[in-house]
Amino acid sequence: MPEIILADSKTIEQNLAIAATIIDHDGRAILSRVSPALLTALHQHFPDQVNASSSGSTVIIRGSQQTQQQGDLSGGYVGILTAGTSDVPAAEEAAMLCTELGCHVQVACDVGVAGLHRLHEPLTAMLHEQPVDVLIVVAGMDGALPSVVAGLVDVPVIGLPTSTGYGMGGDGNAALLSMLQSCVPGLAVVNIDNGIGAGALAACIANRAAAARGSR
Amino acid sequence: MPEIILADSKTIEQNLAIAATIIDHDGRAILSRVSPALLTALHQHFPDQVNASSSGSTVIIRGSQQTQQQGDLSGGYVGILTAGTSDVPAAEEAAMLCTELGCHVQVACDVGVAGLHRLHEPLTAMLHEQPVDVLIVVAGMDGALPSVVAGLVDVPVIGLPTSTGYGMGGDGNAALLSMLQSCVPGLAVVNIDNGIGAGALAACIANRAAAARGSR
Amino acid sequence: MPEIILADSKTIEQNLAIAATIIDHDGRAILSRVSPALLTALHQHFPDQVNASSSGSTVIIRGSQQTQQQGDLSGGYVGILTAGTSDVPAAEEAAMLCTELGCHVQVACDVGVAGLHRLHEPLTAMLHEQPVDVLIVVAGMDGALPSVVAGLVDVPVIGLPTSTGYGMGGDGNAALLSMLQSCVPGLAVVNIDNGIGAGALAACIANRAAAARGSR
Amino acid sequence: MPEIILADSKTIEQNLAIAATIIDHDGRAILSRVSPALLTALHQHFPDQVNASSSGSTVIIRGSQQTQQQGDLSGGYVGILTAGTSDVPAAEEAAMLCTELGCHVQVACDVGVAGLHRLHEPLTAMLHEQPVDVLIVVAGMDGALPSVVAGLVDVPVIGLPTSTGYGMGGDGNAALLSMLQSCVPGLAVVNIDNGIGAGALAACIANRAAAARGSR
Amino acid sequence: MPEIILADSKTIEQNLAIAATIIDHDGRAILSRVSPALLTALHQHFPDQVNASSSGSTVIIRGSQQTQQQGDLSGGYVGILTAGTSDVPAAEEAAMLCTELGCHVQVACDVGVAGLHRLHEPLTAMLHEQPVDVLIVVAGMDGALPSVVAGLVDVPVIGLPTSTGYGMGGDGNAALLSMLQSCVPGLAVVNIDNGIGAGALAACIANRAAAARGSR
Amino acid sequence: MPEIILADSKTIEQNLAIAATIIDHDGRAILSRVSPALLTALHQHFPDQVNASSSGSTVIIRGSQQTQQQGDLSGGYVGILTAGTSDVPAAEEAAMLCTELGCHVQVACDVGVAGLHRLHEPLTAMLHEQPVDVLIVVAGMDGALPSVVAGLVDVPVIGLPTSTGYGMGGDGNAALLSMLQSCVPGLAVVNIDNGIGAGALAACIANRAAAARGSR
Amino acid sequence: MPEIILADSKTIEQNLAIAATIIDHDGRAILSRVSPALLTALHQHFPDQVNASSSGSTVIIRGSQQTQQQGDLSGGYVGILTAGTSDVPAAEEAAMLCTELGCHVQVACDVGVAGLHRLHEPLTAMLHEQPVDVLIVVAGMDGALPSVVAGLVDVPVIGLPTSTGYGMGGDGNAALLSMLQSCVPGLAVVNIDNGIGAGALAACIANRAAAARGSR
Amino acid sequence: MPEIILADSKTIEQNLAIAATIIDHDGRAILSRVSPALLTALHQHFPDQVNASSSGSTVIIRGSQQTQQQGDLSGGYVGILTAGTSDVPAAEEAAMLCTELGCHVQVACDVGVAGLHRLHEPLTAMLHEQPVDVLIVVAGMDGALPSVVAGLVDVPVIGLPTSTGYGMGGDGNAALLSMLQSCVPGLAVVNIDNGIGAGALAACIANRAAAARGSR
Repeated sequence: MPEIILADSKTIEQNLAIAATIIDHDGRAILSRVSPALLTALHQHFPDQVNASSSGSTVIIRGSQQTQQQGDLSGGYVGILTAGTSDVPAAEEAAMLCTELGCHVQVACDVGVAGLHRLHEPLTAMLHEQPVDVLIVVAGMDGALPSVVAGLVDVPVIGLPTSTGYGMGGDGNAALLSMLQSCVPGLAVVNIDNGIGAGALAACIANRAAAARGSR
Repeated sequence: MPEIILADSKTIEQNLAIAATIIDHDGRAILSRVSPALLTALHQHFPDQVNASSSGSTVIIRGSQQTQQQGDLSGGYVGILTAGTSDVPAAEEAAMLCTELGCHVQVACDVGVAGLHRLHEPLTAMLHEQPVDVLIVVAGMDGALPSVVAGLVDVPVIGLPTSTGYGMGGDGNAALLSMLQSCVPGLAVVNIDNGIGAGALAACIANRAAAARGSR
Repeated sequence: MPEIILADSKTIEQNLAIAATIIDHDGRAILSRVSPALLTALHQHFPDQVNASSSGSTVIIRGSQQTQQQGDLSGGYVGILTAGTSDVPAAEEAAMLCTELGCHVQVACDVGVAGLHRLHEPLTAMLHEQPVDVLIVVAGMDGALPSVVAGLVDVPVIGLPTSTGYGMGGDGNAALLSMLQSCVPGLAVVNIDNGIGAGALAACIANRAAAARGSR
Repeated sequence: MPEIILADSKTIEQNLAIAATIIDHDGRAILSRVSPALLTALHQHFPDQVNASSSGSTVIIRGSQQTQQQGDLSGGYVGILTAGTSDVPAAEEAAMLCTELGCHVQVACDVGVAGLHRLHEPLTAMLHEQPVDVLIVVAGMDGALPSVVAGLVDVPVIGLPTSTGYGMGGDGNAALLSMLQSCVPGLAVVNIDNGIGAGALAACIANRAAAARGSR
Repeated sequence: MPEIILADSKTIEQNLAIAATIIDHDGRAILSRVSPALLTALHQHFPDQVNASSSGSTVIIRGSQQTQQQGDLSGGYVGILTAGTSDVPAAEEAAMLCTELGCHVQVACDVGVAGLHRLHEPLTAMLHEQPVDVLIVVAGMDGALPSVVAGLVDVPVIGLPTSTGYGMGGDGNAALLSMLQSCVPGLAVVNIDNGIGAGALAACIANRAAAARGSR
Repeated sequence: MPEIILADSKTIEQNLAIAATIIDHDGRAILSRVSPALLTALHQHFPDQVNASSSGSTVIIRGSQQTQQQGDLSGGYVGILTAGTSDVPAAEEAAMLCTELGCHVQVACDVGVAGLHRLHEPLTAMLHEQPVDVLIVVAGMDGALPSVVAGLVDVPVIGLPTSTGYGMGGDGNAALLSMLQSCVPGLAVVNIDNGIGAGALAACIANRAAAARGSR
Repeated sequence: MPEIILADSKTIEQNLAIAATIIDHDGRAILSRVSPALLTALHQHFPDQVNASSSGSTVIIRGSQQTQQQGDLSGGYVGILTAGTSDVPAAEEAAMLCTELGCHVQVACDVGVAGLHRLHEPLTAMLHEQPVDVLIVVAGMDGALPSVVAGLVDVPVIGLPTSTGYGMGGDGNAALLSMLQSCVPGLAVVNIDNGIGAGALAACIANRAAAARGSR
Repeated sequence: MPEIILADSKTIEQNLAIAATIIDHDGRAILSRVSPALLTALHQHFPDQVNASSSGSTVIIRGSQQTQQQGDLSGGYVGILTAGTSDVPAAEEAAMLCTELGCHVQVACDVGVAGLHRLHEPLTAMLHEQPVDVLIVVAGMDGALPSVVAGLVDVPVIGLPTSTGYGMGGDGNAALLSMLQSCVPGLAVVNIDNGIGAGALAACIANRAAAARGSR
């Protein structure tokens, strides 16, 4: 598992220095919780090397000669479902890390419990067309979708709560607590908006399954 | 709406005295959160007048001559769904009050999101065979069922969280917060284990709808 | 119940796209928690179609040909009371949705427990002159008004806490908890500042009562 | 202000020893939060000297020769209102201390917001027949009564929350927070179930007012 | 007790309108939690009538002809102590209201428990030179000073916690909880930063004592 | 994944009935959070069929003819580490479920951060002698061990907090929060004392890896 | 620092086995949070070897031949102050450990802020007659004493909050938060009722100071 | 221990005035939580006298003639370890104060549990090459490092949690709670980001040890 730089508690100067060191050492640096100001600075210091998520909060920087080796496919399969549009940035963060770690990633958005009929088709595809090794289910507000999905499948499910919501239980707290209290056994969770953590675990599970398959 | 005696913060002597006063005045007393010791005392003081829920926590006591008038059917219809077996006592408390207030009550238990396929049949019956005026959806732990149901129906839905669960978010807190954060607009909630409150509101809604129907 | 777009956890681009899709499909889109920047963008993209609340946080956008059908009166009656001036935006959000869903809405503001004598006249009008099917009672700070009102009426009461207040229990938490603990049975609540949720439930109750009346 | 022994965090032996010391020194000991076991022990060690509240949790013990001087009337007037029957023990604790400190005490119970019409008569008596110097308003659950009363009077009001209630905000937390957020300026509070504290402050205010009157 | 406008949850327009109405009716308006923008607007709309605290958050506006009658001395005496310099704005808010309500106010700042030796002299003056009827003790962070003072005096003490502090228990929460848990009976509290509330209660107590003295 | 009966929120009668139904249907029932009274009842109703954990809280009951098929080895490998002796019951609950689901389980106890030197040997065995597919790391109090272990290995790690501890952050809350905040990406958690949940997820991961290996 | 057995999260059998192992290895075992049942069992298994605190919650067991070496004086000096009688058990737990680790311990009880005049004499003795190397200040409820003491001395002060108190902030939470927010820099704290932790740190500081003195 | 000005709850004018007074009195002023605006003002008012930490939040200002005496070495040794780069500002704040109070300070950063192998070398140096009298261990997020270090050393350890982290338990709360729950006895903590407090206590301990050594 590569080291991931949690950018938002460090100064721009610290982030640039740490990223440079890691690129020298590993050929690649991954940063999460990147501010717009830091993103600008990264583009300036590492021109043509920066790969940012659409929200800009997750960034992968490659050293020139390492590009080819990185990103080789591992053969692991990860499925990601989001309850709503607001959950997309966290899902994208997870997807970006899984892809970087070599996984095939399938994503389906806006399939939450307010419109459960939208869940059937993408979930069927993930389970049967190109079966995934692990599912990440992303939800804010009521956090109900991961429990619903975990009740329907027999692959490992990781609940990823997001900070969508307001009032009591807002900022993702209701979603996280609801997932911790899931009535379906076997649902594990990561912290609110921790797409990187969910992606890291999912990739670890998927890639080990792929390795087992590959050891044939 | 009849006055309801919250028994558990009063002494047995206080409860007996208040119940007697209300029976004299209204011909009926309703007590919630009744302890086993109080239930025994109520049976002793009001022989053959005590109607208790199976858990014993909700009790209706009737004065002799008032029995007939009470409980006449109002024509309101209430549906109650529970996520699990643990939610039955709260559901029963709500059902008992709705029945006492004249409503037809349909109950379906153990249809939570861990086994969503069990939801379809009873929900269809409540919506189409004998259409209900209002639904109470009871759930502890993840509290996900009310959001799921509210996304499927167009009758008013009242979420009733129960104190099932453990660890962080236990004692019904995750369930309540999840319902407060429901991604489906229009779900209202009562406090944890407040079956009486959910029943009172449901009966009020159902009986007013019945009165409107009856005013033809 | 129409889908309602929770705008504040989405980007402006996402909101515009979702609104356009819903207008195409339903002839109308409703957005809540709209930022000033989003409101400006909505006016630009949907000229002459935007109907915003005075605070600008709730917006209804109509497709051109659908205007006439939408907003037909359903015959439902909703009353809204606010404890203070600070509670007006949440009340307005609820009123706007109820009106959109066809209800007659009566509103009385600033009738909280600091000046209870102001409550009598508007409440009497709502109960007797043009009887409402349901009451929404909006209060921040101590959240006491819904309990007081629920003790005086026999129509369904929905408590809507607002984020008015400061210090411990501020941000609407004391108001919400106080409503959850109401000593009057049958008061249901929605989350803090969730005027849309209160309005959706009230309209649902009122319109079903109106339909029952209309089925004569 | 006499020292008051908080009994429930001390052993029976410690309480007996401290009480004996204080009786020797001051001619009187006051204990709060007395357990039944301690009450029995106090009766055994101080026969015919123990004056306990009806709940037994507050106890005053007098040394023999001091009985006459203690309890002389100070001329201060204290009014106590409770929202419900469950609030009586805390009210009684406050009343007992105020009486011991020489005040006239008027008490009216069960005048909470679920039945506000019951408030008018006793409150009028406290304000006009025998005007009180200070009011203690006791309430659990929603904690709404102190705000209502404070909006009606111009004497100092002390809010005394009680641990009545259940679910979220139970154990008196909603009541305390609601009082802290009172929309009526000038309402001060003590901690949950702290009848002794409310009584001590009320007696201090009333007796100083009486002294000012007496200094004529 | 005059009505006090909680400004920060209202728009500037609402505040101006409410202030004008109250000035017309009462000859004076009092606003708390005034923002700099509102303060500017108040100066513009009520030129030469605005009296603001040095922090600008509390404002008194007088109608022209009413100036003389308002602010007449009542004869009540209020003492205010602050633990630190950071507590001065809340103290000033309380002092300004007490003065407006006719009280003599003595203030001593920066006498907290980190330098308890500074407490003796001002406290002695308040108790013996010009005895106060009531003390407001203002403290943030550890909130220890009110308990210390209440253990030394026999006048009513009102604890006023402030939002000074950081980390766990910051924003005044530790201070408020510590005061609620005071080991000295008879300490009442108001909410965090609620200088207006503390001042209102203190003035009420002091002015009633003065009236009693004056009734000689 | 078999259904697991959460026993502690149900009556003994309900548990017996549900267990009987599931045994009839699946040939086996699994109960968690079993009370001593329920355990006794289970032994009476299902003589010679009850397999209980040493703490008695987890119970597996087999129908007679199904015994042989159940418990066949799946080929999955699970490692379980506990920080202290107090964490053993939760670990045992997880181990019992993993074993029931066919996994090989290795357990090492009392290897927490207070004596980190004890961690090396068992962890080396789990990684290299008989490599595990997944690790469950159980810890109460400071909850530090899962982060330490996750920093040392490249297999999936599930953090299982236990309710060991006292004072602020006790009951497992500090442990859970610390794991949610792990500085090592990819650590997922289940709720406090949820050994069943950790075991269910671990078995799911391990058995799928075994299946992939077995698909050679 | 010797290992200390946290007894209350282990079974009696586990505690006996661990204690025996540690006695064999170190010649002495220390247990904290010992239940009465465990204390009885310890007396039975280790007759004449058990040294228990007066509350019985802390126990030291010595192997026969090790008795002489253990408890040799280290030359370190520790002072312990308690706010009230209720704080004595935690103080005793700390004192017992410090004594066991070789320190001279001075204790003064019931010198809290409700009677600050009682503090001067014992504190003077600890600072000047037999100067201590470190002070432990024990307080529940408002937790004010450690801040007061830390403002008066220049030795290290350890705040030890106790679970005395009730209502909001009870169970020692207000005391702990108040100490964390101390306005006096340099006050460190341990968790609520963690007398063992406070004693361990105090002994470590005092014994190292003594060693430095002894290195002359 | 010098007085330290907590700057962030005071106005710039207040801070300048207090700093000037303290410099006059003590020859030196120390300010913590200094804002950039205040730092600019300090440089303007005290040219060439300001010594700021690299983050600018901690500032020491010396009066001209006092410079030489201040900062003389006391002979105390303090070691500081940080888990990550984000913890450096708090560590620097502590180091700056310890240095100002005369201590030798050794600092090693980024040795947290995600890469425990980095801990060995600096910790060995602090324990054996130039043995420290006390260790400050700084960590945010999971807060695990202080427990790990305290399990390895026999010098006093002060845990300093920082506000690094996000989601549930963020803002340093998980780190603080984890340290309060440390399974290693004798770890004391200060509040989140309270580098000044940790430094003050460490310097106090180290300088007293140095004085004891120096008293040879």
